[in-house]
Amino acid sequence: MKPTPITSLQNPKIKNVAKLRQRKHRDRQGLMLIDGARELGLALANDFPVETVFVWDERAARHADLLARAAARSVRTQPVTENVFRKIGYGDNPDGVLAVAPQPDFPLDALPCPPDALFLVAEGVEKPGNLGAMLRSADAAGVTALILCDSVTDICNPNTIRASRGAFFTVPVAAASSADTLRWLRANGVQIVAASPAGKDYHFEVDLRPATAIAVGAEHTGLTARWFDETLAKIPMFGQVDSLNVAQSASILLFEAVRQRLSNDE
Amino acid sequence: MKPTPITSLQNPKIKNVAKLRQRKHRDRQGLMLIDGARELGLALANDFPVETVFVWDERAARHADLLARAAARSVRTQPVTENVFRKIGYGDNPDGVLAVAPQPDFPLDALPCPPDALFLVAEGVEKPGNLGAMLRSADAAGVTALILCDSVTDICNPNTIRASRGAFFTVPVAAASSADTLRWLRANGVQIVAASPAGKDYHFEVDLRPATAIAVGAEHTGLTARWFDETLAKIPMFGQVDSLNVAQSASILLFEAVRQRLSNDE
Repeated sequence: MKPTPITSLQNPKIKNVAKLRQRKHRDRQGLMLIDGARELGLALANDFPVETVFVWDERAARHADLLARAAARSVRTQPVTENVFRKIGYGDNPDGVLAVAPQPDFPLDALPCPPDALFLVAEGVEKPGNLGAMLRSADAAGVTALILCDSVTDICNPNTIRASRGAFFTVPVAAASSADTLRWLRANGVQIVAASPAGKDYHFEVDLRPATAIAVGAEHTGLTARWFDETLAKIPMFGQVDSLNVAQSASILLFEAVRQRLSNDE
Repeated sequence: MKPTPITSLQNPKIKNVAKLRQRKHRDRQGLMLIDGARELGLALANDFPVETVFVWDERAARHADLLARAAARSVRTQPVTENVFRKIGYGDNPDGVLAVAPQPDFPLDALPCPPDALFLVAEGVEKPGNLGAMLRSADAAGVTALILCDSVTDICNPNTIRASRGAFFTVPVAAASSADTLRWLRANGVQIVAASPAGKDYHFEVDLRPATAIAVGAEHTGLTARWFDETLAKIPMFGQVDSLNVAQSASILLFEAVRQRLSNDE
């Protein structure tokens, strides 16, 4: 039986979902928001646990397949009227789908580490949009996992998930301190390649075919000194502007690893 | 003699500058806005004509060098009080510098075309942020020019300039129709490499050392069919999310060209 749409902005459930746009409420309740049908589809396809799907009632028909897939996983769908969706959804032209899910843990020890592992390590990245862009590139490059070190950004920020176009759900993610990450990578015999303008070698001069972690640092400051004992690689830069965006650097490095791994003649 | 600060939000000059945040007023007046000291510095260093610099009076001291460089180029500096700057500047924490400049022309025929030319062609790109990110990567990769085809974005959008971190002033830019661009590139003997998932070869399998134009298409639709007679190159993608961001794709392709051009052993 289809549940009755929620019509009131004063409904306590709705007031609570609206609060989840703020980090303190997400953290306090251990919950996160998933905006959009594509993103929810990737969450479901990757067995990410979802609690409730809120759907703009008049737009539910166009999401029938998605909602059926949610129902098959015992995810509750809650229809709401337009005014209610506009209170809890994101942006001016939402597609009418918003899900609430428990925040997962991001333990380092849960990550796989195959012999051809390719990790992207992002230390101290600040902007959810950059983190989302890195997730999207990491998905395309087929990385083993993204490891967030000393993260300033709230990983479960809905802006990150939107910017990732749902790659948040397709790329394994871990969060840890830089010290623990270095220890874990070394213990697993993973080569660590740190992006730095101080590098002597260009990034394409480093052999990225063995199990490798590519590390990039915060937007303004780059990697902290604890990464400088590792292999440093610099991206050649010919311009007048001081640096590449961290997500662009990550893409360039990841796809150089992909190139090396797909090239037979090297 | 130091000009008197403008104190009134009703000052006609100030009201006019504030209007320039809207495209229609920029286009009508043939003017553009440059937000920020770094961006203005790059504009001056690259002989970009600037009309007036508005500076938040209390913050002028920290920009003394920049303002002296502006003055040396006969650019007029107009101090304004905080309340006035907050009306015309961008964002909550502006650095106190905003310049007004004439919109340049972007003629294709003015571009240089050396034997080792590397062009980035962006067709129909919609988001100022993506255009800015592409300018930043194009600056780092040392491209000959960025050519905007059938641009939907207003090239002189202040958001583009900010996202470029000033690379708008360091990278030569042209704007033209796709048809004219193809004609111009062919007439100049430039190899055209179009990014497309329909490509048979990976991007790193194409020889990018000759004079080359790398073409990328609009965010949702990619390149139009008129590019499909050219060399198509695909970026390998292993993920579940359908595509890379256009600025990420451009970076990956540009730095593959840089790699090939710097590698001696190929």
